[in-house]
Amino acid sequence: MPNTADELMLHLQAAGVSACFANPGTTELSMVDALERCSGIRTVLGLHETVCTGAADGYSRLSGRPSLALLHHGPGLANGLANLHNARRGRSPVLTLVGESSEEHNRLQPPLACDARALAGTVSAWVERPGTPGEVEGMVNEAMLHCGGYPGRPAVLLLPDPLLATACKPFAPPPPSEVQWPVVPDSRIEAAAEAFQSGPVAFLLAASGSLARGVTAAGRISAETGAQLFCETFPARVSRGIAPITRMPYFPEAALEAFSHFGTVILAGAPEPVTFFDYTPTGGRLIPTEVRVLTLATPEEDAADALERLAARLHATAAAEFKRPDHDKPQADALLTPDLMGEVLGSSLPDPCVVVDESLTSGRTFWIHSESSPRHELMALTGGAIGQGLPCAVGAAVASPDRRVVALQADGSGLYSLQSLWTMARERLDVTVVICANRAYRILELELKRAGIRPPGTVARRMCTLDGPAPNWVSLADGFGVPGVRVETAGQLEHAFRQSLHVPGPTLIEAILT
Amino acid sequence: MPNTADELMLHLQAAGVSACFANPGTTELSMVDALERCSGIRTVLGLHETVCTGAADGYSRLSGRPSLALLHHGPGLANGLANLHNARRGRSPVLTLVGESSEEHNRLQPPLACDARALAGTVSAWVERPGTPGEVEGMVNEAMLHCGGYPGRPAVLLLPDPLLATACKPFAPPPPSEVQWPVVPDSRIEAAAEAFQSGPVAFLLAASGSLARGVTAAGRISAETGAQLFCETFPARVSRGIAPITRMPYFPEAALEAFSHFGTVILAGAPEPVTFFDYTPTGGRLIPTEVRVLTLATPEEDAADALERLAARLHATAAAEFKRPDHDKPQADALLTPDLMGEVLGSSLPDPCVVVDESLTSGRTFWIHSESSPRHELMALTGGAIGQGLPCAVGAAVASPDRRVVALQADGSGLYSLQSLWTMARERLDVTVVICANRAYRILELELKRAGIRPPGTVARRMCTLDGPAPNWVSLADGFGVPGVRVETAGQLEHAFRQSLHVPGPTLIEAILT
Repeated sequence: MPNTADELMLHLQAAGVSACFANPGTTELSMVDALERCSGIRTVLGLHETVCTGAADGYSRLSGRPSLALLHHGPGLANGLANLHNARRGRSPVLTLVGESSEEHNRLQPPLACDARALAGTVSAWVERPGTPGEVEGMVNEAMLHCGGYPGRPAVLLLPDPLLATACKPFAPPPPSEVQWPVVPDSRIEAAAEAFQSGPVAFLLAASGSLARGVTAAGRISAETGAQLFCETFPARVSRGIAPITRMPYFPEAALEAFSHFGTVILAGAPEPVTFFDYTPTGGRLIPTEVRVLTLATPEEDAADALERLAARLHATAAAEFKRPDHDKPQADALLTPDLMGEVLGSSLPDPCVVVDESLTSGRTFWIHSESSPRHELMALTGGAIGQGLPCAVGAAVASPDRRVVALQADGSGLYSLQSLWTMARERLDVTVVICANRAYRILELELKRAGIRPPGTVARRMCTLDGPAPNWVSLADGFGVPGVRVETAGQLEHAFRQSLHVPGPTLIEAILT
Repeated sequence: MPNTADELMLHLQAAGVSACFANPGTTELSMVDALERCSGIRTVLGLHETVCTGAADGYSRLSGRPSLALLHHGPGLANGLANLHNARRGRSPVLTLVGESSEEHNRLQPPLACDARALAGTVSAWVERPGTPGEVEGMVNEAMLHCGGYPGRPAVLLLPDPLLATACKPFAPPPPSEVQWPVVPDSRIEAAAEAFQSGPVAFLLAASGSLARGVTAAGRISAETGAQLFCETFPARVSRGIAPITRMPYFPEAALEAFSHFGTVILAGAPEPVTFFDYTPTGGRLIPTEVRVLTLATPEEDAADALERLAARLHATAAAEFKRPDHDKPQADALLTPDLMGEVLGSSLPDPCVVVDESLTSGRTFWIHSESSPRHELMALTGGAIGQGLPCAVGAAVASPDRRVVALQADGSGLYSLQSLWTMARERLDVTVVICANRAYRILELELKRAGIRPPGTVARRMCTLDGPAPNWVSLADGFGVPGVRVETAGQLEHAFRQSLHVPGPTLIEAILT
């Protein structure tokens, strides 16, 4: 008779799970052993749990399917929370499995004991722990249903190790799992169509509204009506190269200004945007109070369908067009700035590719320079928990072995999860990592200025700069088995970047920015 | 009029806080700015929150004084939890300060919003958040009282950023903070003395029972009575070189065997030990049921005082003696094994020094070989949350600039928090890091065997080994500005280790183990 761990893993495999990002401990060994018999699940080791949860997030956002993060209990789960926070904000269907001790053993307060439910509850509305082997089958079906597809939701299943090792009856085949998002009522299509009567219209696209179907329909509406398309400042996933989309500015003054030109902002898959922090005097708003905000579809609804119906209602059939920017080719020997870096990369993106963008302050102009690049999916840092980019690139590359993944990575954030490089090397993932090496937490320098703390004192300067010594990313990459190169000019970056596309496996390019 | 952040930091400085390990974000900038005016607090940047909390733990365990971990809210706190878990288990008085948004802003669900109280509650019994500037002074006094000294307790103070920026009245000078642990009643001294009537006695020393005063008294008792002294498998801090102390074995069979020779085990500052995991058939116990367990002092009581009173009661005045092991000097060209590594390091420890031991499986014999080394403090991984060693070494070196810190570090665990190396380089800390490079999670291999999963399959092997590629620690160290060297023989290790002691600042030695 198989044990519960075997049945669980075979069941997940039958339900379509094909990737497991793991850093197991003793209480997960029966699940590891069960994975031996699941050739349909690729099990990938991360050297820290943040790699595992971030990779599962990237995999699930891109594939639209639940993936597994297999973590050790207590501190193992705690280590994975930051990227589960990003997964939650990114509506990514990550199913986290945690091996646990029995309650009886936990009452003895062994060294690893801690409140896993409290930890898990901060990143998932669905947290369960079976008390008997018989409960596992129902719970895992419920978890998969909760996860859904993309956009979906993370879930956490806490599994006592002694229970997993217990023999159990074979599970029934998993129920069919086609994900259906609620369709919005006609009244909302009508209200959106009427908005065009009262001044210029902007759309804020997110969730399924920023995937290919949604963007295609929004592009038609834009071409027909002149409406401007925006995406969130840090989109979970956006399909680019279909229609021109403006990225919402980060700072409130700039966002308020950008939206002030419109009579209505229509939310298509996006919640109303709010600032990261309590900024005075603007408060949390990013859309001026005098602009009307209309919800066409919430993130949980079928925003793509709503946009298609609105396009039909508006008789918008012509595809969006891009104004191709007419750049002078940058001087090959020009020292790299964030802007030059964006220009070089924007004109060099391969077709097909996936861009994982945690470039933060350094990448602001990459967006503009890559607007008319070949079609690609872009995924960004959704929850502000830095260190998401490199793990996300791992997951994206596992989900999509036929596309090059370009990870545009701020250096300070990249240092949060640099262990991801080892997984890229071990799994021979086709990832080009571009480190935006400004050797600073530049956003903090900007926020210091904004807070009126100027000039910053010695302590503040030391908290914002990554120097004395500056990390050497080429050495760090070498330490994890990834070939690396340092570039300082536009020509060097272009050469290194284009070359990396022809070399199987990962490459790291440290772009020194001035 | 100063703002609340200024008053808070000046108050903490006046209360004796002298180190702050920080990775601040926007909501902590007023505290960073306040630190400009606290020249008595050394503010040290960590590249990941786990470095900050682990360093604060190391600092507080060694100095016996509260230190600060200054973290960003939400995911920043989450990233620091693993080492706060170790701090809690190690009874380390770490005060974590977290900047927060206002409740009003959090209600908007901004990207970083998450339940900080739930996170903090998993690692600290004391979590508070002031609602008005006037509450801050009382709360910080309460937090410092809760933290106490070492042994003490961690505390978490959540501080809304808008409140910190508000002007406030000057705080009163901090109350006197001499830490006093409860003294145990005479009846317990008497009961312990009587235990010697009924068979051989062992002591399990921890908390103040394993610091110099406690060990000195226990050593006298041992010399007088023949009692054997044990410390926990993973001691928070133990003063070595005073009396012979046996480290409790990790696996239950070995621990049960070790204690089976005694009529009584007397707990002096230690709780009754339990296994990490639900092992069958032994359950959670590590002391056989037929052995009497007697509490002389709980971890919260004054175990050192109790041991001194017991020594007086037993008229034990002669100091403990060591049997100096009579080793042949290892062959210089012998390839390193864990045992040889222990032998070389045990015979080379400088005087004075601090040993931070997260060597796990590789370091089992180091303990024996260093038993009669010069007096040193040893601090180990207390809560099983791996990745504690390198951060702890950072904190120990800041706390104790007059002593070399030797960090004996397992490679798999070291990769959890390798960012610590950068802080060692930047702060020019006198740390010698010895990486025990067995390129495996060896403990998992042992646990697989124990669980009867043998031979392990392909998936299990890939989850337990750190190869294909093996990390290159010399490159990783170079990437963070720390000079490194790889050694493969006993002679090379001895040479590199002794040389590192004469070079100011950090050195990393990658010891390849066979």
